[in-house]
Amino acid sequence: MGMVGGSTDAFIGAVHRRAAIMDGEIELVCGAFSSSPEKSAATGAALYLPPDRVYANYEEMIQKEKELPEGERMDFVAIVTPNHVHFPPAKLALENGFHVVCDKPLTHTTEDAEALVKIVEESGLIFCLTHNYTGYPMVKEARELIKAGALGSIRKVIVEYPQGWLSTLVEATGNKQASWRTDPERSGAAGGLGDIGTHAENLAEYITGLKITEVCADLTIFVEGRLLDDDANVLLHFDNGAKGILQNSQICNGEENDLNIRIYGELGGLEWNQMEPNTLIHKVQGSPARLLRTGVGALSEAAQAHTRIPAGHPEGYFEAFANLYRNFALAVRARWEGKDQDPLYDFPDVYDGLRGMKFIDTVIASDKSDEKWTKFIV
Amino acid sequence: MGMVGGSTDAFIGAVHRRAAIMDGEIELVCGAFSSSPEKSAATGAALYLPPDRVYANYEEMIQKEKELPEGERMDFVAIVTPNHVHFPPAKLALENGFHVVCDKPLTHTTEDAEALVKIVEESGLIFCLTHNYTGYPMVKEARELIKAGALGSIRKVIVEYPQGWLSTLVEATGNKQASWRTDPERSGAAGGLGDIGTHAENLAEYITGLKITEVCADLTIFVEGRLLDDDANVLLHFDNGAKGILQNSQICNGEENDLNIRIYGELGGLEWNQMEPNTLIHKVQGSPARLLRTGVGALSEAAQAHTRIPAGHPEGYFEAFANLYRNFALAVRARWEGKDQDPLYDFPDVYDGLRGMKFIDTVIASDKSDEKWTKFIV
Amino acid sequence: MGMVGGSTDAFIGAVHRRAAIMDGEIELVCGAFSSSPEKSAATGAALYLPPDRVYANYEEMIQKEKELPEGERMDFVAIVTPNHVHFPPAKLALENGFHVVCDKPLTHTTEDAEALVKIVEESGLIFCLTHNYTGYPMVKEARELIKAGALGSIRKVIVEYPQGWLSTLVEATGNKQASWRTDPERSGAAGGLGDIGTHAENLAEYITGLKITEVCADLTIFVEGRLLDDDANVLLHFDNGAKGILQNSQICNGEENDLNIRIYGELGGLEWNQMEPNTLIHKVQGSPARLLRTGVGALSEAAQAHTRIPAGHPEGYFEAFANLYRNFALAVRARWEGKDQDPLYDFPDVYDGLRGMKFIDTVIASDKSDEKWTKFIV
Amino acid sequence: MGMVGGSTDAFIGAVHRRAAIMDGEIELVCGAFSSSPEKSAATGAALYLPPDRVYANYEEMIQKEKELPEGERMDFVAIVTPNHVHFPPAKLALENGFHVVCDKPLTHTTEDAEALVKIVEESGLIFCLTHNYTGYPMVKEARELIKAGALGSIRKVIVEYPQGWLSTLVEATGNKQASWRTDPERSGAAGGLGDIGTHAENLAEYITGLKITEVCADLTIFVEGRLLDDDANVLLHFDNGAKGILQNSQICNGEENDLNIRIYGELGGLEWNQMEPNTLIHKVQGSPARLLRTGVGALSEAAQAHTRIPAGHPEGYFEAFANLYRNFALAVRARWEGKDQDPLYDFPDVYDGLRGMKFIDTVIASDKSDEKWTKFIV
Repeated sequence: MGMVGGSTDAFIGAVHRRAAIMDGEIELVCGAFSSSPEKSAATGAALYLPPDRVYANYEEMIQKEKELPEGERMDFVAIVTPNHVHFPPAKLALENGFHVVCDKPLTHTTEDAEALVKIVEESGLIFCLTHNYTGYPMVKEARELIKAGALGSIRKVIVEYPQGWLSTLVEATGNKQASWRTDPERSGAAGGLGDIGTHAENLAEYITGLKITEVCADLTIFVEGRLLDDDANVLLHFDNGAKGILQNSQICNGEENDLNIRIYGELGGLEWNQMEPNTLIHKVQGSPARLLRTGVGALSEAAQAHTRIPAGHPEGYFEAFANLYRNFALAVRARWEGKDQDPLYDFPDVYDGLRGMKFIDTVIASDKSDEKWTKFIV
Repeated sequence: MGMVGGSTDAFIGAVHRRAAIMDGEIELVCGAFSSSPEKSAATGAALYLPPDRVYANYEEMIQKEKELPEGERMDFVAIVTPNHVHFPPAKLALENGFHVVCDKPLTHTTEDAEALVKIVEESGLIFCLTHNYTGYPMVKEARELIKAGALGSIRKVIVEYPQGWLSTLVEATGNKQASWRTDPERSGAAGGLGDIGTHAENLAEYITGLKITEVCADLTIFVEGRLLDDDANVLLHFDNGAKGILQNSQICNGEENDLNIRIYGELGGLEWNQMEPNTLIHKVQGSPARLLRTGVGALSEAAQAHTRIPAGHPEGYFEAFANLYRNFALAVRARWEGKDQDPLYDFPDVYDGLRGMKFIDTVIASDKSDEKWTKFIV
Repeated sequence: MGMVGGSTDAFIGAVHRRAAIMDGEIELVCGAFSSSPEKSAATGAALYLPPDRVYANYEEMIQKEKELPEGERMDFVAIVTPNHVHFPPAKLALENGFHVVCDKPLTHTTEDAEALVKIVEESGLIFCLTHNYTGYPMVKEARELIKAGALGSIRKVIVEYPQGWLSTLVEATGNKQASWRTDPERSGAAGGLGDIGTHAENLAEYITGLKITEVCADLTIFVEGRLLDDDANVLLHFDNGAKGILQNSQICNGEENDLNIRIYGELGGLEWNQMEPNTLIHKVQGSPARLLRTGVGALSEAAQAHTRIPAGHPEGYFEAFANLYRNFALAVRARWEGKDQDPLYDFPDVYDGLRGMKFIDTVIASDKSDEKWTKFIV
Repeated sequence: MGMVGGSTDAFIGAVHRRAAIMDGEIELVCGAFSSSPEKSAATGAALYLPPDRVYANYEEMIQKEKELPEGERMDFVAIVTPNHVHFPPAKLALENGFHVVCDKPLTHTTEDAEALVKIVEESGLIFCLTHNYTGYPMVKEARELIKAGALGSIRKVIVEYPQGWLSTLVEATGNKQASWRTDPERSGAAGGLGDIGTHAENLAEYITGLKITEVCADLTIFVEGRLLDDDANVLLHFDNGAKGILQNSQICNGEENDLNIRIYGELGGLEWNQMEPNTLIHKVQGSPARLLRTGVGALSEAAQAHTRIPAGHPEGYFEAFANLYRNFALAVRARWEGKDQDPLYDFPDVYDGLRGMKFIDTVIASDKSDEKWTKFIV
């Protein structure tokens, strides 16, 4: 693995590194960790990389690595930069024959996203978008329960992603994480909606297997001086007639990172909270709720395939993230071995990424419209 | 207290009776418990009432009681019938000089509600609408914290009232509670929206002190054969610029009676759940959340005035309901004694009831409109 | 009902009154509320009792009421005084033909308790000891599940009753509740052990149907200047070979009134917490835990018989307490009607009370002993 | 790092490997993974180790690695075998100049433990015992709060470690984890007491800074046919006069891995549960409890030094375990650099291990004794 971005003062780069190496299938061999060659070199040194595998920029990395003999050169590129630097390295990597893991949202603009879909398709290479929350075992279990009909037809979906860390104008204090996320130049047309709302959209569609078809959105910038949305309330219509609510926020004072979802169908309901990820509550009217727990009892093959340790030993954020990297690595290995990718070891791809970008556009369009409903078409 | 409705097979009548007598301030002295004189008589007997104080109908009750000497006759009427039988007995009672406690929603139609407001005003009598959830001590505490500025300016309000008991066509099985609630003739223009959505609206406005000014609504009838809404998703705008979501449902499979609210302001957040009513969570970004508990520590005078017992001895639904009756009784007593009503011992009134009726109309109008926002004007 | 004790500044008297009247089966008709005739009179007035039914002391009450015609006089006596004033009025009431409801622990000394058992037996009257926590519907459910074999043979029982309110020398501050509870003259040989430890003992035996046969106890007075135990850690042996732990404390800083129990058998486990009394967790190794909830689904007849309202409307401390009074009233009525008492509507009796007194003695003896195990024999 | 034990069908070996590599400071370079050379070779291959660094047994590994040039040979040995194979490889490694990380309990017998202490002392090398639960950030926070006096003098400690996985005779079904743990030849004199009870003892002493001085124990074998204790109830006395309870069990049907601790002092209380490890509840009588959360607000330097990611991204079992390895690696690096070990980055050592072995002996002796109290002397 070669990494683009992720210098030592970044947040998500270290997450990707820990996730990548967790299962012993992936090794970091090179990187262009920063737009500053000095920072990149320092990061490489801190990671015990040989100096000649630490590059000044991603262009150099991709070119030099390509020149190395197979088996020695990196097998894929992990892109962990701010949103506006997703597309260029992804494009270059794919055009030079490298598989790609990319942080979300997919790109800075929808045009780039559509271009990237074509590039991936033409390259035939493997592309993983890190909608990491789908890597949790209990998310897999929820999806399998619904597939198996445990809820019957879905009627209502409530997905929420409240955070509180941007309750004040943090970006004015020099906080690096806040600065780029609230800057249209680096983040794109959306603030919180792109940063966390797309996770919520992806999670809802992933678990239910449904597609959102219409939205009615109310975006707000609550903190004076901020340039992008820090709160979103969205009504949803799904393709089977289900109704829903998506809300995300960065001004929910005191909330940490509380992605959660509740799904109700004709026969039962499910509830999952990212902050207690190893519990999935299964409800049925007139019966005791059942607390499904990671590692306990007869869970789906999918849940089991994404669990490392017996019940009661909490697996968390890094482990869920690592499940994407592990599955990506298995896909790459399958490719090497001429095998098909095993659907049990799934991960989000470039189409999920395009869908997220279009979701951003649709919600923003809805917010600006006086019409109640805006179609969500990809 | 004389009761209209509430025969032994009803649900809410027994609640009102237990609530009324809990604090030793109110005694049931007579009733017209059913449109069936036999049922009324049987209920009266089961309640140990003398047969001559059990009436065939409310008209008879009001007339006969009026003829009794003061001190012997009932002091007020409690109306616990289905929605379409709220207005007539309320009107008659007020016109004959009796104070009134009435279940919500106020009336069957908004016209009746407006008429009732006038009748109450002209009568100068005391009217209590049993939006009982405002009787919980931790609801009082939340309101006082907000009044005192603990959250700063409110930004976001999420109020939910999910139930699951109407996940199937229960009204077709002879269930009395389901039958009238889903019947436009008895329930009014709204189903779940009127039954529980108005509680949510009332709670949000009561705690925050804000007024909803616009709504964007999506109502659904999910269960085939049902005549009224069993699910509502509503975006809210408040008069201070706050945004919100109100959702209520009777098809949330496995949910019991989970009224809950989350409120976020510039300085902090609050969370309260009716099913664990003695806990109020106070959140502040970057600080540990505080678990405020009924009876623990320096709570507001309002919270303390609605608590009967030391901490850790759970008070619940009946006690909160009883707080309304106790406060109503104090208001009646103050009237007798020529004193002002103490604002510490508050209860919802006919204006809350009118507001609820208009909320129903507004949400229904919004649901039918293609415009995104519909003004909420009372 | 005539009440002994329970003046307006007491805690448990008001609880008994609310519990007694909740279901409309019992009416307070007279009382001797305080050793101070003035306080008694004031309490009677506050309760709207006619002055001639408010007595200066319990002797007078019992004598005068006995002289009233049947149907007019009180049907039973409720004793809500400090522990040292349980036995005398109970004895007098029984000897004069009145049924008795008595707060726990039964008496001030075990000698009195044994005497009282004989008096009850000789009188043939009905005696209820208010171990109120057994009145919760989910406690009934737990007992029925175990009776029905859901756990198989019980192996381990952990029962706890932590409070924190005596973490400091509250009794030195004039707190009335603290003063008598920590005073050997009024409380008896035990402090917290008698006040709350006996509830824990009673609950464990009630739910499991087992009897404690041996204890190994470690009592402590943590707060300097206190005269009676404020903390107890006790190992238990049960008659079927099960092992257990009972701990109660009044110095668990920050705990409110957290009586809780966990029971493990060959086939499963149960967990119940008094502070969230409407949930009973049923655990089975290798299966999802089931959240049994008051009012939800196919609960035992016993649980249903002690529930007043549909699921999700929390019933609490008063309602559980009221279940004892309601059941006692049904027993009295059955007696009047010449019927047998229905075992479905059970309540603790004088034998439970004697057992509690002997438990206190046994734990104190064990605490003083160097032997590991002390037999618990009643 | 070279590993002894931990073939692919083991549980704890994979945990150690993930923990070791998580922070990029440690690399697995060699191993003797099984007493079966074939299994060892297969495990090495699965881990992408070069075949010449995969050894048939630990003797060979230590000898061969020692012959490699510095910088190329392993820096330390990680021992993850069943208890009876802790001492021999630890001894050999230390005697050959390798630092050691060893799973707990320290050894098979107390004699070995005492011998090992001497060997460590004589070697001057670094020894880490993986009492991994002390690696959680909120455990560090609890310890720091107590050190800082937030609870005042400690009065009561309740530490529990219930599991349910040995509720039946699992060891008779060929379950490898169950087999060695319940076999005196491989596990030692204790079953659950050694496996999990020592974690509880270590945690209680680590957080409180107190030492247990006396115990009163009740051990049981509940499952017929089992050879070692599967349940322990123990009363504790601490060196400052505090009292306590320790209970561990493997027959608590339905429990997963629920290590938890409650500590009460003069000024407040703390509660922590391993299964929700990122929350620490701080209680104070008469005040709202505070929910301390990993990553939120002004936590101790110690808590912050063991956290990798912002609040709300749950870190779990692997991350806590990795904190021990990271701290061990820092200690080794400090040694290389001639620096002192930074006390902020602490980890359990051979003295904790000896204490655990003596605790096992003391509890077993107490269980067999008729005396109430047995001294715990190390």
